[in-house]
Amino acid sequence: MSASRFRFDLLATSGAARRGRITTAHGTVETPAFMPVGTRATVKAMTPDAVRAAGAEMILANTYHLMLRPGAEAIAALGGLHRFMDWPGPILTDSGGFQVMSLAKLRKITEAGVTFRSHLDGSEHELTPERAMDIQHQLDADVAMVLDECTAFPATEAEAARSMRLSMAWAMRSREAFRERPGYGLFGIVQGGIHPDLREESVRALCAIGFDGYAVGGLAVGEGQNRMLATLDSTVPHLPADRPRYLMGVGTPQDLIRSVARGLDMFDCVLPTRSGRTAKGFTQRGEVNLRNARHALDPRPLDAECRCPACVRFSRAYLHHLFRAEEMLAGMLLTAHNVTFYQDLMAGLRAAIEGGTFTETADRWEADLAHGDIEPL
Amino acid sequence: MSASRFRFDLLATSGAARRGRITTAHGTVETPAFMPVGTRATVKAMTPDAVRAAGAEMILANTYHLMLRPGAEAIAALGGLHRFMDWPGPILTDSGGFQVMSLAKLRKITEAGVTFRSHLDGSEHELTPERAMDIQHQLDADVAMVLDECTAFPATEAEAARSMRLSMAWAMRSREAFRERPGYGLFGIVQGGIHPDLREESVRALCAIGFDGYAVGGLAVGEGQNRMLATLDSTVPHLPADRPRYLMGVGTPQDLIRSVARGLDMFDCVLPTRSGRTAKGFTQRGEVNLRNARHALDPRPLDAECRCPACVRFSRAYLHHLFRAEEMLAGMLLTAHNVTFYQDLMAGLRAAIEGGTFTETADRWEADLAHGDIEPL
Repeated sequence: MSASRFRFDLLATSGAARRGRITTAHGTVETPAFMPVGTRATVKAMTPDAVRAAGAEMILANTYHLMLRPGAEAIAALGGLHRFMDWPGPILTDSGGFQVMSLAKLRKITEAGVTFRSHLDGSEHELTPERAMDIQHQLDADVAMVLDECTAFPATEAEAARSMRLSMAWAMRSREAFRERPGYGLFGIVQGGIHPDLREESVRALCAIGFDGYAVGGLAVGEGQNRMLATLDSTVPHLPADRPRYLMGVGTPQDLIRSVARGLDMFDCVLPTRSGRTAKGFTQRGEVNLRNARHALDPRPLDAECRCPACVRFSRAYLHHLFRAEEMLAGMLLTAHNVTFYQDLMAGLRAAIEGGTFTETADRWEADLAHGDIEPL
Repeated sequence: MSASRFRFDLLATSGAARRGRITTAHGTVETPAFMPVGTRATVKAMTPDAVRAAGAEMILANTYHLMLRPGAEAIAALGGLHRFMDWPGPILTDSGGFQVMSLAKLRKITEAGVTFRSHLDGSEHELTPERAMDIQHQLDADVAMVLDECTAFPATEAEAARSMRLSMAWAMRSREAFRERPGYGLFGIVQGGIHPDLREESVRALCAIGFDGYAVGGLAVGEGQNRMLATLDSTVPHLPADRPRYLMGVGTPQDLIRSVARGLDMFDCVLPTRSGRTAKGFTQRGEVNLRNARHALDPRPLDAECRCPACVRFSRAYLHHLFRAEEMLAGMLLTAHNVTFYQDLMAGLRAAIEGGTFTETADRWEADLAHGDIEPL
């Protein structure tokens, strides 16, 4: 572990878009950055080598899943998450709040925290701000997230306000329980639904506590891209410029481009990995469904511009065959492609911000993405 | 494609065990060799790079599966199997006979060949010796296999005789239909059940036709290791010394050691790959079931002597976690380990034959394998 402080350096801007660098105990992350999701201590269908080769510098893991299996204590006993899953780079863990909220009838929320039943075996568990900090410490996360209540959508303004204020109280307790170590950081999570006043109130509450970074939570939960971007427009200007900004659980390539344009720095989403297992490939010319029969005899790569193993070595016809035959290699190859595509998209945006050409680059990407898949043979 | 002739060079012997080299249009194969099974143009859960890294030089693919999906004509149009699946090395294809015989009620055998219904969509297909040669030519197999009828076990001697003689007639027609090309070879398949006289008759019939190699078929179908080895004992001495000998569909590490001891050169089996997906790991100290709870906190590698990524980078605890969580990476890592273990076993046997120490090495391996898994922590 390096002794350097957890820090964020803002290196360049282009309009509202920011080019930065996060320094953690386990290395640096160039931003804007997309973190592949390794829910249960594995980015599904990829070896850590493949994740690295795709260009990812930081990954996300899930407190909720890991506390239930194999357990935070087990991972701590095995040397922490980096060693357990052979990912020596930075890891961000969510606090488990979002997953617990999704349990619906299986959970009960009080001021103290959340009690819930495991979806695996029905056993009862408790997640408080203090316990969430404990677990993330045991996992050895470079970036821990405060425990929050992810406000449902739709919610009345009164519900959103109550929920947000509970999250702010939990944020304070999380901050107090977080164990400071060099190179480790704690992020607050802005809530408040789609209500600008509540979002602003949430930002002010978090800034008064003080965090190493600020996440925007409670979005991409069904509100649609327009409301999501409007919420970013009314939230981001209140966030401090000298801290990283993380949009949780987002999103499509277009979502990422439009959020980077609004000054967001970090993202995570299961979309590239999940799509990789369900035959949906992301390309510069939009999405491709590899189960479609028109690929059966197509000798061309999925994306001729892509450097990933699936595109360099295999044809659309072969990927189509693997998906039709339900071979594991199908999901392995397409996941690696999708994660590479997302990483290269972010690298392209970073270069554009550095070059001061973000708007032109973003417009070109968006036009290409909207163009749709390449012509059939 | 190299213009060199398909050939087999016998380099050394130690007792009956043989150290050789097969030269094909797509490269050489050091024998004794184990060929990982790539049924549907993919060694399950492995990239071709991983198969190469494990040390495999030649793989097997299945005519039956590939003729149904994506079709031999499709693969030919896409440049052949090597290009389709990105395996530039030698490929052996079985003739489809064994799979068709397993279809039971879905197939009908005549002197002409076999008609059967696809297990995928019920469509009707015909496999004759001539068609089997055609398909394997379209697939671009370095080693093609004659169409044979795999005699059921148990069978009466009369049934085994009738079945073997049909296979010998088909072997003759296969030889006549095989299109000779430099570096490509055709293997005959010895049948005759567990009856020494029939096996000898089959060998004589095949040798009279003349093949580039000789396979022993119809074993590992339920007869047990003792009868299998006894059949090898009564068959192998009749086979020509200057051609490779291939034991089809075998087997466990112990099966391989005992068959190499009897002068067999080539093997294939789904055991290492299938076991890799069902949590069974092969080690020098026998088999390990990674689902077993005793691995949950075990920081040691599956096999401390193993050079594979699963053993170099991950703990038994992590592999256990992946299998419990049913993550794809579980099968990916353990398959790579098992294939590496099989390749390293063969490499060890080859070195022992070269060094003239085959018997001692075989005895030591067998003792280690029988010793059972390493002690619990």
